[in-house]
Amino acid sequence: AVKEIGTTPGVRLGKLRRLIGAKPIVRAMEAHNGLSGLIVEHSQVEENGTVEEFDAIWLSSLTDSTAKGRPDIEFVDRTSRAQTINDILDVTTKPIIYDGDTGGITEHFTKMVRSLERLGVSAVIIEDKQGLKQNSLFGTERPQVLLEKEAMCEKINAGKQAQVTDEFMIVARIESLIANQGLEDALDRAQAYIEAGSDGIMIHSREKDGAEIKAFCEAYKKFENKVPLICVPTSYNHLLEEELAEIGFSVVIYANHLLRSAYPAMKKTAETILRNKRSQEVDSECMSVKEILTLIAD
Amino acid sequence: AVKEIGTTPGVRLGKLRRLIGAKPIVRAMEAHNGLSGLIVEHSQVEENGTVEEFDAIWLSSLTDSTAKGRPDIEFVDRTSRAQTINDILDVTTKPIIYDGDTGGITEHFTKMVRSLERLGVSAVIIEDKQGLKQNSLFGTERPQVLLEKEAMCEKINAGKQAQVTDEFMIVARIESLIANQGLEDALDRAQAYIEAGSDGIMIHSREKDGAEIKAFCEAYKKFENKVPLICVPTSYNHLLEEELAEIGFSVVIYANHLLRSAYPAMKKTAETILRNKRSQEVDSECMSVKEILTLIAD
Amino acid sequence: AVKEIGTTPGVRLGKLRRLIGAKPIVRAMEAHNGLSGLIVEHSQVEENGTVEEFDAIWLSSLTDSTAKGRPDIEFVDRTSRAQTINDILDVTTKPIIYDGDTGGITEHFTKMVRSLERLGVSAVIIEDKQGLKQNSLFGTERPQVLLEKEAMCEKINAGKQAQVTDEFMIVARIESLIANQGLEDALDRAQAYIEAGSDGIMIHSREKDGAEIKAFCEAYKKFENKVPLICVPTSYNHLLEEELAEIGFSVVIYANHLLRSAYPAMKKTAETILRNKRSQEVDSECMSVKEILTLIAD
Amino acid sequence: AVKEIGTTPGVRLGKLRRLIGAKPIVRAMEAHNGLSGLIVEHSQVEENGTVEEFDAIWLSSLTDSTAKGRPDIEFVDRTSRAQTINDILDVTTKPIIYDGDTGGITEHFTKMVRSLERLGVSAVIIEDKQGLKQNSLFGTERPQVLLEKEAMCEKINAGKQAQVTDEFMIVARIESLIANQGLEDALDRAQAYIEAGSDGIMIHSREKDGAEIKAFCEAYKKFENKVPLICVPTSYNHLLEEELAEIGFSVVIYANHLLRSAYPAMKKTAETILRNKRSQEVDSECMSVKEILTLIAD
Repeated sequence: AVKEIGTTPGVRLGKLRRLIGAKPIVRAMEAHNGLSGLIVEHSQVEENGTVEEFDAIWLSSLTDSTAKGRPDIEFVDRTSRAQTINDILDVTTKPIIYDGDTGGITEHFTKMVRSLERLGVSAVIIEDKQGLKQNSLFGTERPQVLLEKEAMCEKINAGKQAQVTDEFMIVARIESLIANQGLEDALDRAQAYIEAGSDGIMIHSREKDGAEIKAFCEAYKKFENKVPLICVPTSYNHLLEEELAEIGFSVVIYANHLLRSAYPAMKKTAETILRNKRSQEVDSECMSVKEILTLIAD
Repeated sequence: AVKEIGTTPGVRLGKLRRLIGAKPIVRAMEAHNGLSGLIVEHSQVEENGTVEEFDAIWLSSLTDSTAKGRPDIEFVDRTSRAQTINDILDVTTKPIIYDGDTGGITEHFTKMVRSLERLGVSAVIIEDKQGLKQNSLFGTERPQVLLEKEAMCEKINAGKQAQVTDEFMIVARIESLIANQGLEDALDRAQAYIEAGSDGIMIHSREKDGAEIKAFCEAYKKFENKVPLICVPTSYNHLLEEELAEIGFSVVIYANHLLRSAYPAMKKTAETILRNKRSQEVDSECMSVKEILTLIAD
Repeated sequence: AVKEIGTTPGVRLGKLRRLIGAKPIVRAMEAHNGLSGLIVEHSQVEENGTVEEFDAIWLSSLTDSTAKGRPDIEFVDRTSRAQTINDILDVTTKPIIYDGDTGGITEHFTKMVRSLERLGVSAVIIEDKQGLKQNSLFGTERPQVLLEKEAMCEKINAGKQAQVTDEFMIVARIESLIANQGLEDALDRAQAYIEAGSDGIMIHSREKDGAEIKAFCEAYKKFENKVPLICVPTSYNHLLEEELAEIGFSVVIYANHLLRSAYPAMKKTAETILRNKRSQEVDSECMSVKEILTLIAD
Repeated sequence: AVKEIGTTPGVRLGKLRRLIGAKPIVRAMEAHNGLSGLIVEHSQVEENGTVEEFDAIWLSSLTDSTAKGRPDIEFVDRTSRAQTINDILDVTTKPIIYDGDTGGITEHFTKMVRSLERLGVSAVIIEDKQGLKQNSLFGTERPQVLLEKEAMCEKINAGKQAQVTDEFMIVARIESLIANQGLEDALDRAQAYIEAGSDGIMIHSREKDGAEIKAFCEAYKKFENKVPLICVPTSYNHLLEEELAEIGFSVVIYANHLLRSAYPAMKKTAETILRNKRSQEVDSECMSVKEILTLIAD
């Protein structure tokens, strides 16, 4: 039995599937430490009498790496990222989607699945790339070598065998469009990954107009076996959540925006202090001392 | 021998003392993760042909705790903070001043000194409080119980005996003014702490006008044995660095400003996305995707 | 739903209470890393057709500290111990009882409870001491300052308020006999701690003959409100589990024996190699290379 | 300046090269946690008036993984192993040789070098394998895929460029004999790795008689450019240190013996307690309570 307040790993784990079942589109926002986790947990706006908030926390590999001062090349390892997860788990209750990069080799991925599941993480997303991981948003500026479809299927399948609960989700992220392999390749992989047991498909694209994504969704609708579709509209950011829902997406991930707004703010503060040789000039852009002291309850 | 690029723990450790000896005032800025460490390391402004930058990194207990979503009550422990230190050490070269809170009991403090020194941290600052630590900026809104002067001296002395190098600094932070114990108590403690071996004195005050701080400095000038004075002008932020230097300070610490500016930026981003149901409207306040991808070299 | 193999935090958490309800006496053995956790998980002996194994894992503060090369004075902190817990959780399924030392100040203890519960730990045991923690087995050779009964009750109560599930157990460990405060004090505290919400009582004694422990149990039987009794028969190790069960104990903890046997074995190996200037002479006392390579499945 | 007691990362780092220069053969013993580190640090035997002790600590990937309950397949990651290193660094002063497995991809290896060097580790040893790492002692029972010579040279070279001090050593471990690629391949790789900048060569063999190793050493003697040779005589454990020195080895590593002797001791203890239903019968094989309490000074 669980008291009203707080959450347990089991309850939290199962929440993502329930939300996907219940809402037109599930809204996830990145967090890279406890504080940004608190922002995702507690931010609310009221619009026309409705309170809007985020449904889930995206544990971005890019922002966790960047926050730690490291490039996004899978150098920040599982144990380091587990420290971030644990900090976030300790202060939030919303379901967590974990950016698993490539998932590593299969023998490591199965153990990662078990550890994440044990912590109460709801889903892991792994991408079908190999070699030195490069962020997808580089597109073809940097070599993006796709993993063979069969190897990816095997990895997904091994992960599904490893998990203990029924609720944990393994989501395949398709990089065909990022690597210029075309729509057919993306659709072919989607079908194969679903057959291999994937609980969701994330389709990634860097095109600004969203046409590519729409084409994928159009074709996906005709699939006989469908799983929830996930998008990361960092490039095609003009599309509204309801438009994304309409073309078939179940989850939208705002993948890096908290960190991307924190950095220029901190940089400006640093430079303003250096320029003025005191901190008075930055005070208006800082949360008050009183606010920072009482932000987090004892 | 050390190559031109990079640094070693030994070189880094000794840098703070050298800077205090060489500069009118040493300028430290807080960092709470690798990324903010990189900002302190690399921020530069050019003013009238001179390049200004920070000299040292302040490892604030308040901002490290807050970044992890925890209140500033010494709950974020040594091992958790060591993770932050290690992330910062790996990507920076500037000397580090560690906010040691109360330092804990003496038997723990001596081991903390050894560990910090081993990592190449230059100094630890411990405050003369006891019981449930409360942030000094609360002032007397929350009970601030001072540690007896003799117990503090013993702790300082034990720390000095424990350190291995000559360069490592143990700095006593005097909370008399925060706890409304008056100037005499502050001066009396300063004298005792210096005799106990303290390598520096941080005097803390919440007064906005700086009069209290100035009075302390005035009296301190007459001390026979003096060690470097350190201030944290969060409240009296109108005083310029050269003014602080003139009244006797050797080090100024901007103790929490990067985090205090990151939070409102992140909060605004979260709310703007919730309000607009897409991220397009926050793009202008975010660093570009290209910038975040290339910010940190592979 | 949980598959047959493996466990979840929720299932594991609840297991201790179920075992206490079902068995005459629950048998816990210490573990201080993943490997010793595996030993507690898998060790079995067959006696007269019955298979005997351990029921639970004791996460000793003494052995975790010692394994890390540190004295048992609460210097190994929560985050460091969480690394040990996580290693053990990842490779075992039996319920875990966590040695919480004094639990720290109340504001820290409540957060510790939440974190342990979230990981699926079944119980935390805290002792009614204060100041520099000294291992109980020192007895009065070292000062053992008891915490006031009321303060302990308040800490127990705050912990009970903080927990999220009904199953998590907070157990009070009474140090009256260790600190020579007498049986009356021990019984008085037991009553108070139960009223404060304690889910179990650990009574600790260093007496070799067990008379002290038996006297406590005798008196405890007359309590109106009883909770499960826990013992640590490091000193009175002649008493059999069934004897302990008979006098009223529900749980027996073998608190430090794996580490205490590992150390002399390692020391002897080190010295034998130094003496012989090769490793041939230690081979017969070592597990075979083949065994260590296949001990843990890929 | 460094006081007599203790050590600094810089002093420790440089010690391995100095010992290799000064001693006929340097003797390293594995450690997998702080306690085994203390054993390596402090074990001494007196033979004919000479005191023998270990010169260095080997941070085995096999024993660190096994102690954590994990298979030796590079699943225990850099951050987890850094926790072990830090525990050991905090309580020892002898130089540390780090088992770097394959070193990972080059972009990760260079960062690993920097981190190890910063901690005061003296050397990293990386092996020329790829794919799912399998312990060398499996021999050809499990597929052992060698990394192409050129790729290994590139990795070594990148590591050498990355290091900051002159003292840090990067040692190439040649797996040709393990993978049945023959002596010629081993010698050819040795030459190439030395040209690429390798500061030492570890040659590994599973042959019990040591003939293979001797043949390698014989041929190695004719090399124009030589670097220190390192062996791991787990299989050919009849050869004495002076014999190993005579055929050309500078360093001998006892790679896994402490853990291999700890395990059977712990297992026996667990089973004896289960069989007897009390701990009295294991007491004689355990260090005394008094000893464990005072083993590590406050």
